[in-house]
Amino acid sequence: MPKIIDHDQRRADIVDVTWQLIVEGGIEAATMREIAARAGFANGALKHYFSGKDQIIKDAYERGLGMMERAILTAVTGKRGIAAIRAHCTAALPLDESRVLAGRIQLGFWDHAVSNPDLAELFGRHIEEWRSALAGYLEEGRASGEIRTTLANETVISNIMLLNSGANVLCILAPEVSTTEVQEELLELLLHQLTQP
Amino acid sequence: MPKIIDHDQRRADIVDVTWQLIVEGGIEAATMREIAARAGFANGALKHYFSGKDQIIKDAYERGLGMMERAILTAVTGKRGIAAIRAHCTAALPLDESRVLAGRIQLGFWDHAVSNPDLAELFGRHIEEWRSALAGYLEEGRASGEIRTTLANETVISNIMLLNSGANVLCILAPEVSTTEVQEELLELLLHQLTQP
Repeated sequence: MPKIIDHDQRRADIVDVTWQLIVEGGIEAATMREIAARAGFANGALKHYFSGKDQIIKDAYERGLGMMERAILTAVTGKRGIAAIRAHCTAALPLDESRVLAGRIQLGFWDHAVSNPDLAELFGRHIEEWRSALAGYLEEGRASGEIRTTLANETVISNIMLLNSGANVLCILAPEVSTTEVQEELLELLLHQLTQP
Repeated sequence: MPKIIDHDQRRADIVDVTWQLIVEGGIEAATMREIAARAGFANGALKHYFSGKDQIIKDAYERGLGMMERAILTAVTGKRGIAAIRAHCTAALPLDESRVLAGRIQLGFWDHAVSNPDLAELFGRHIEEWRSALAGYLEEGRASGEIRTTLANETVISNIMLLNSGANVLCILAPEVSTTEVQEELLELLLHQLTQP
């Protein structure tokens, strides 16, 4: 009986292996040779599944962003307004070891996105999803009266995104400036400002 | 008569060439071969001046950080308290084309610093200089009475650094979130908070 090959599963396995290699040694460490070896493929066999390294890296980045999106979605479920913003930001900030690790990997993807339009587009889509989610929470908060700031939504959203990206950089490279306590304090400060007319 | 070779000048020339290559194509583009060719050296001759690529990259990063430090120093000269914080941040934020370019290069150095302790140490020293300068301005502002916030200096300093690092990331990868106007608005918001008891 011929073996039935689940090609989608194989693609997913290859992306999993790639992600793990990036976690261990950065994007440079995820060579086609290494990926094939870890996934148990002959070197040339990856070509049946991906057009090249760029596509595998893109899929790995998409997987990483997807993991973060799902964590955020779980955190905000059932919440509205300021509580939803707090939950969203808390889920995204590098407040525990696994998210610090994700932040470290993010640095590599950011650097590659400068010269790789596919990665840049993925990141852009991710940012758009955040903007639209945060804008929704802000509107809920304004409608219920808990958010009374005269700052424009776009300003608040940018503030959140700059703090989040900055925290990602500094929790790796200057952890004393971006401790868990500092991140939480700055988030509460920002949320408090929203309640001020 | 024997030619007198200015070795310091040659080292500086090599670092200049390396910086330019990084500007054009990122750290990966600055290969020993390319650096030697641009600087007009035979491939092996670089070894007389640098122990290897890591040392050249470190010196190039030091050159880049030094340029930024000098720009900040010029901007803050003669200023105290909030005016000095504003000048420092304005000089550091990616508010014009040359600083957006510097931010793009910074992304590459950040990524490499994750696995290169020399780069990480340089960045750490740079962060320490900022912390100590900003702490000085905050003390001046508190002494003169213009700064009345109950926030700890360390919190304010971290807020500034997170916003600055985040602006560096997003002005490249999501410029619509980190426009010049938004950066200036967020800076003024932060400075205004300092005056609030």
